[in-house]
Amino acid sequence: MHMDLVAALDIGGTKIAGALVDGRGRILLRAQRPTPAREDGDTVMRAVEAVLGELTSGELWGRVAAVGIGSAGPVDASAGTVSPVNVPGWRGYPLVERVRAVTGGLPVELVGDGVAMTAAEHWQGAARGHDNALCMVVSTGVGGGLVLGGKLHPGPTGNAGHIGHISVDLDGDLCPCGARGCVERMASGPNIARRAVENGWRPGPDGDTSAAAVANAARAGDPVALASFERAAQALAAGIAATATLVEIDIAVIGGGVAKAGDILFTPLRRALRDYATLSFVRRLTVTPALTGTDAGLVGAAAAALGGASSGAVGVRSGVGG
Amino acid sequence: MHMDLVAALDIGGTKIAGALVDGRGRILLRAQRPTPAREDGDTVMRAVEAVLGELTSGELWGRVAAVGIGSAGPVDASAGTVSPVNVPGWRGYPLVERVRAVTGGLPVELVGDGVAMTAAEHWQGAARGHDNALCMVVSTGVGGGLVLGGKLHPGPTGNAGHIGHISVDLDGDLCPCGARGCVERMASGPNIARRAVENGWRPGPDGDTSAAAVANAARAGDPVALASFERAAQALAAGIAATATLVEIDIAVIGGGVAKAGDILFTPLRRALRDYATLSFVRRLTVTPALTGTDAGLVGAAAAALGGASSGAVGVRSGVGG
Repeated sequence: MHMDLVAALDIGGTKIAGALVDGRGRILLRAQRPTPAREDGDTVMRAVEAVLGELTSGELWGRVAAVGIGSAGPVDASAGTVSPVNVPGWRGYPLVERVRAVTGGLPVELVGDGVAMTAAEHWQGAARGHDNALCMVVSTGVGGGLVLGGKLHPGPTGNAGHIGHISVDLDGDLCPCGARGCVERMASGPNIARRAVENGWRPGPDGDTSAAAVANAARAGDPVALASFERAAQALAAGIAATATLVEIDIAVIGGGVAKAGDILFTPLRRALRDYATLSFVRRLTVTPALTGTDAGLVGAAAAALGGASSGAVGVRSGVGG
Repeated sequence: MHMDLVAALDIGGTKIAGALVDGRGRILLRAQRPTPAREDGDTVMRAVEAVLGELTSGELWGRVAAVGIGSAGPVDASAGTVSPVNVPGWRGYPLVERVRAVTGGLPVELVGDGVAMTAAEHWQGAARGHDNALCMVVSTGVGGGLVLGGKLHPGPTGNAGHIGHISVDLDGDLCPCGARGCVERMASGPNIARRAVENGWRPGPDGDTSAAAVANAARAGDPVALASFERAAQALAAGIAATATLVEIDIAVIGGGVAKAGDILFTPLRRALRDYATLSFVRRLTVTPALTGTDAGLVGAAAAALGGASSGAVGVRSGVGG
């Protein structure tokens, strides 16, 4: 029998998703549990084991060659541990070892969730065919990952591409990470909403103060709402330009809830990018919405497992077996 | 006879240096001309040809297997052209083709000067043994290069690692590149001196308003001079931390005239780095002075030729021949 499948885990603060995925990225079996994020570490692990149990108990399991995990970060791929900010029970938690113990000793690849999303976009999304790309998720937080020289670049610990926590405003507002003026502090959904409210925007009768509500107000022409998206776009542009200047990417792909604002985000972003991406070798940089959806984490974890995190998404295209 | 040597060219706005270099990085023959930087492109090329003429005319030339060029940027390694800011006669100048024409069709590798210095530091300097490093020159400008996964990362056009033109202050002062708040605009030697003068520092009787003079004043306790270096250190720290957060480096190596300020630069730099390099996977990042000196450009160009710019400095260690 061909060992032509991989098992994928997508571990976030809200849910733990699992799937069996083939060499073309098709999902053949799914399982999911809510993340008991406020419980102790072993309780969280039991939810992971429940998801894996649904995958291992079926007849497809015999075709599984490897396990890929995309986890909320920070992760430490070299140590095989995870410390997701929103799962306090896991600090330096030996996730790789625990997953290997319940999956019969298969190879396990661990990457951060931003790297997983990047693997998915490079394999099947907007970064397909691009050898040098930055992929980002702009949502409650801001994460990302890099494709360099045609390969996923997870970095030694699986966290590379962490654009949300580079400073683009070194005297700026303090970020929960401890630095100042981080891209996330200026461009995440909650910060877009916070800034709009601070500058006088008020929600409608439904009381919705989400970034999506600010985007609706911006679409209706509210100047404060527009300005908050423009400031976020400026911070994203400075961060994307910095990335291009440092590693030479030719495309930046943006997914996540904030990207759903569409032109409200992308129009000022493309304008601001011209202000910050000034050197000859970065001027052709383009910015585009992500194509993969809610399965990006699973597909990307599968890509990491198929390619091996070090060989990356290029290796994936040919699949592992049949 | 072994083809065990490479020819190296280091092209800057002041001088054009050439050398024959062996697989251990030893320089066996040198040649040099001033750069006729204000002349037309063909006149500048004749100076390059004069340097190459001294190298090709000796008996060692028969052992040369390849040519490496490190040039002031921007360069375009994919097109084989250079457009050095300080050499206006060269804009999109087909340097690789011209050099190949006078060196008998040998393979020619072109990289930016920051990438060349990085190859030298990775081969023989402070980045030796580090698989993930940022090397920088802080001088009249601020340049740099990257080693990722044990290999030089020049990027598709040979300009990667261009840390001088990432913005760390998105509302900051306009930079000649067109962006705002670039690391170079805050941390280059001329900008350290400019800021000190603007804030009331006055030179001694010799009228020396260089960054070296500001460093001497800082060493003597002048608070304005100290503050100017501290601001430069803060900008460098934000840029280095951004680089580490994006690609996971574990060491940043700093050379160039401003690095000669020693503790006046490195003490506030290491302090500021703790403020900006906050995520778990970048906290162990160290900063250290460069070890290679005035020959860094030649040695780095040789490293690029020996390894091929794409395979990088790792391939160099075993040499090309004998």
